[in-house]
Amino acid sequence: MRPTTEADDSMSKLKLNITMSLDGYVAGPDQSLQHPLGIGGEQLHTWLAPLKAFREGHGADGGEVNASTPFAEDILAGAGATIMGRNMFGGGPGPWDGDSWQGWWGDDPPFHHPVFVLTHHPRASFEMDGGTTFHFVTDGIESALEQARVAAGDKGISLGGGASVAQQYLAAGLLDELVVSVVPILLGGGARLFDNLGDAAPRLAQVEAVGAPGVTHIRYVKAR
Amino acid sequence: MRPTTEADDSMSKLKLNITMSLDGYVAGPDQSLQHPLGIGGEQLHTWLAPLKAFREGHGADGGEVNASTPFAEDILAGAGATIMGRNMFGGGPGPWDGDSWQGWWGDDPPFHHPVFVLTHHPRASFEMDGGTTFHFVTDGIESALEQARVAAGDKGISLGGGASVAQQYLAAGLLDELVVSVVPILLGGGARLFDNLGDAAPRLAQVEAVGAPGVTHIRYVKAR
Repeated sequence: MRPTTEADDSMSKLKLNITMSLDGYVAGPDQSLQHPLGIGGEQLHTWLAPLKAFREGHGADGGEVNASTPFAEDILAGAGATIMGRNMFGGGPGPWDGDSWQGWWGDDPPFHHPVFVLTHHPRASFEMDGGTTFHFVTDGIESALEQARVAAGDKGISLGGGASVAQQYLAAGLLDELVVSVVPILLGGGARLFDNLGDAAPRLAQVEAVGAPGVTHIRYVKAR
Repeated sequence: MRPTTEADDSMSKLKLNITMSLDGYVAGPDQSLQHPLGIGGEQLHTWLAPLKAFREGHGADGGEVNASTPFAEDILAGAGATIMGRNMFGGGPGPWDGDSWQGWWGDDPPFHHPVFVLTHHPRASFEMDGGTTFHFVTDGIESALEQARVAAGDKGISLGGGASVAQQYLAAGLLDELVVSVVPILLGGGARLFDNLGDAAPRLAQVEAVGAPGVTHIRYVKAR
């Protein structure tokens, strides 16, 4: 049995796994229904999509196993809740807005735990197949984190993105761990992970770096 | 004796080794005589300065050996010439301008080969101790590359920086190899390596990634 102090320590961890182009973008320009990751943004995940670990999470067979596998598994491993922004969920202005929209992920989303969507648009919670429930939080990032902590219990919390939500948690000093997967593409425009931090940029310490086909995974923790 | 084809292949390689903050900057804001790398920019090289490989190149004893050592050695290893911009040399407008300025590196600069400085300010070549000669090129990046190729003979050419010169060679498709050393700092402003490329962004392929204390080195080559 793990000592209580360690359980307490792991309980509250908020973690972001995100793929970034070499020029610093986590989404391309002109995000839309047709291009949820912006123009060219789908190239960001060419390291992830062929992996067995990713395909399994989306109900598909087969796939590759390589040095990226532990990082694909890590994206949701150990998380008991996810927080994401309305752009990642697909809310916000646009033809796909409204209470009929149930996210990008089909009937059985790969989360299998409560997901808290930050939005200005109040909406009732609803449950999908496979244990994913979407909740909508309109009173800010700290409220979302508190609700996610309760839902996650002794597990961690995954910050799903996108860039704006990640920036808000970074600037507030609330992010405990950050895995940046750097891919060798230059998007030339779009949403930058580390914009808009002002003087609130957190201090980070590198704890791990792993090269894999077409991507380098770098793990950082908040420095004390 | 190496076959001619291999010698020809290695002869023309233009390589850039550069340190980049996690938010994409290769220099901080407000570069000046007091802050040649901009405000906070000196943090970029905290991985490099303590290394024995770096200290030796600057005539100092002692220092550390770690996973960064091959990358520190690689910065000038095998190069028969260097190309740099006027900001890196220290020319351009400012109190340190003029023909008395001999660069930031003292009497015995660490290059030990011909250095071609891109500038709009014509100036006669001059030689320093230890084999470094500074030449000033006013007719553009392709001319500098041609002159550096002649000077380098069968060795490679090191692109010293800074960001503006690197961008010009990237956009022109003239850079053959790029080593980006990513450090876990957020500068929040300054000069970005991958700005101003427009539609001329080159295609890159990742060939190596190595984690070391406080830095991750990623090697890319121009993709065909």
